[in-house]
Amino acid sequence: MRELNVNLGERSYPIYIGQGIMEQIGELFAKHGISKGSPMLIVTDSHVEQHHLPNVIRRLEAAGYKITSYTVPFGEQSKSLRVLEDIIAVALQAGLDRKSTVVALGGGVVGDLAGFVAASYMRGVKFIQIPTTILAHDSSVGGKVAVNHPLAKNIIGAFHQPELVLYDTSTLQTLPDRDVRAGLSEMIKHGLIWDANFVAWLEENAEKLVHLDAEALEYGLYEGCRVKTIVVSQDEKEHGLRAILNLGHTIGHALEATAGYNELLHGEAISIGMVGSAKVAVRLGYSEHIYTVTKRILQAFGLPTSLPQHLDTDEIMSAMMHDKKFDEGNIVFIVPTEIGKVEINKNVSAALVREVVEQLKLEV
Amino acid sequence: MRELNVNLGERSYPIYIGQGIMEQIGELFAKHGISKGSPMLIVTDSHVEQHHLPNVIRRLEAAGYKITSYTVPFGEQSKSLRVLEDIIAVALQAGLDRKSTVVALGGGVVGDLAGFVAASYMRGVKFIQIPTTILAHDSSVGGKVAVNHPLAKNIIGAFHQPELVLYDTSTLQTLPDRDVRAGLSEMIKHGLIWDANFVAWLEENAEKLVHLDAEALEYGLYEGCRVKTIVVSQDEKEHGLRAILNLGHTIGHALEATAGYNELLHGEAISIGMVGSAKVAVRLGYSEHIYTVTKRILQAFGLPTSLPQHLDTDEIMSAMMHDKKFDEGNIVFIVPTEIGKVEINKNVSAALVREVVEQLKLEV
Repeated sequence: MRELNVNLGERSYPIYIGQGIMEQIGELFAKHGISKGSPMLIVTDSHVEQHHLPNVIRRLEAAGYKITSYTVPFGEQSKSLRVLEDIIAVALQAGLDRKSTVVALGGGVVGDLAGFVAASYMRGVKFIQIPTTILAHDSSVGGKVAVNHPLAKNIIGAFHQPELVLYDTSTLQTLPDRDVRAGLSEMIKHGLIWDANFVAWLEENAEKLVHLDAEALEYGLYEGCRVKTIVVSQDEKEHGLRAILNLGHTIGHALEATAGYNELLHGEAISIGMVGSAKVAVRLGYSEHIYTVTKRILQAFGLPTSLPQHLDTDEIMSAMMHDKKFDEGNIVFIVPTEIGKVEINKNVSAALVREVVEQLKLEV
Repeated sequence: MRELNVNLGERSYPIYIGQGIMEQIGELFAKHGISKGSPMLIVTDSHVEQHHLPNVIRRLEAAGYKITSYTVPFGEQSKSLRVLEDIIAVALQAGLDRKSTVVALGGGVVGDLAGFVAASYMRGVKFIQIPTTILAHDSSVGGKVAVNHPLAKNIIGAFHQPELVLYDTSTLQTLPDRDVRAGLSEMIKHGLIWDANFVAWLEENAEKLVHLDAEALEYGLYEGCRVKTIVVSQDEKEHGLRAILNLGHTIGHALEATAGYNELLHGEAISIGMVGSAKVAVRLGYSEHIYTVTKRILQAFGLPTSLPQHLDTDEIMSAMMHDKKFDEGNIVFIVPTEIGKVEINKNVSAALVREVVEQLKLEV
């Protein structure tokens, strides 16, 4: 078991990563001061429920916790105010009080949704993340929680840090191959923005990671979380540095919105977005090597690096303009300056991004 | 013009109180660093709109601000997730970004609703309160913002402090008499929990306050806000002391829920609740004087002190059990121990409260 600490003063918390750590869930909750006197609510989704929910409930009840659970339909559409309202009804009926804890058992959707429930129920109760996807190594660290609005993703939310994150790598064994690869996309991003050595290690271990080798996975998740943790500890509420975590996301979010949330998984969209960012970098005069390595590593993981031809460039650009990575009208773009380093560039023109989007359709 | 400061470290903010200070709105916004580069959203209601919105927009636009406004229907039913979603749509369409400000122009409903929009839009943007009711001298100070759930009031919310509060007493002149009296109920509460001298002053000045005498109003609002400010500064997130602000609210909220939100105004419900708290105090062995003075002052303001006969005691008690002033199953009750002092009593039995509720129906 590896342990990481996210340093945020009185809001600091640990991340535990390891195979089979779910067996210690009762002890770990108690160690971190989670109340047994107040009811606890576990939020999960219809995919995760069957694999893990009974086991988690059994262990927590054996440890003396009072558990209520709520299962939302699998998928992004559950991140809505409607579903939030349903969950709050369940919380009220179960008698959750201010000392209660909301637990997210699932991927990023469940984490974001349950996290916003925890942030807003009675103006904030405790929150625990139990991520069950690789992608969630990103979303479960850092305290950003949100639901979607029909007009924009993640636009209604909060910064609400968890009490702890429990990452049992054995839960990842049931993931579909496509989700594994898409999840690794965020891990690659963490390398590209911060650590050239990690990028080299990722490229060497692509096969092991894609096939869920336990040891490689534990190390990769640890390193990915470590980068995220360093960035988040320095900028909890996204006033500056934290923006670098958006490498590939300006284009990526626009692709997700345009393609509909099912054609492209988040990790696939940002994979294409990271190739786009590398192309922007080259256009701004940075080394061609950035583009070559970025594309090569993403392809090693079987991730898409070109943009589906049928997506309309106007729609993509329009979605980008509605995205919240704008700052007083200027586009904020994360540009790689070498492998393992990026800059927050506030002067990238929409025209240049548009050209890059067009070129992404022609990538081989 | 009087000025108060709410001391909350980096979240500190000033409250300006005075007749005609709306004339300086542009200067005051600029003085407190409100951006002119990002669009601003004013949220108001259908009652306040006609009296004040055009004037506020005109002055802010003259000062160089880009304004969008949104008017919600008057009344508690606007504090819903549905209306929140509508306002967020307007914010998105107007291009509000992370440096934008949401302004609440109105009473407590508008303040709570717009405040939760500000707290959750893009995970938090700036917020300004321009209260236009007396009741809002309470709700506009302290950062508690929320919307209602069909099953419970104020259950979905956040702590989100404003950048400043602008209290122009001339906006109060258009208030209906019933709202004036109900608003003064919270002012009396601030006296009862903290300051016997203020209680004596309130009783002497009841007539002036009810008839909106400008000087009395400015002093009363200042003192009411001052008490609230002291309490909030010591306990921003309601871990302890802040609970004393709930004097009369445990019974009061239950009455509001049972009567439906229109039969009893909030201030009327807590007026009855404060008489109930005084009766609980006497039953616990505190001086009869507490009950006599509490009832006398509330009657001097023309506020109700007995409970409508037709309200069902079982329903009231059931609503109380669902209220969030419970802590691991024990009822938390604010009990006056003398005039100007209260205690947070965690051992008041539901049976005693039930008896007091029954007695409140027999009050003369």
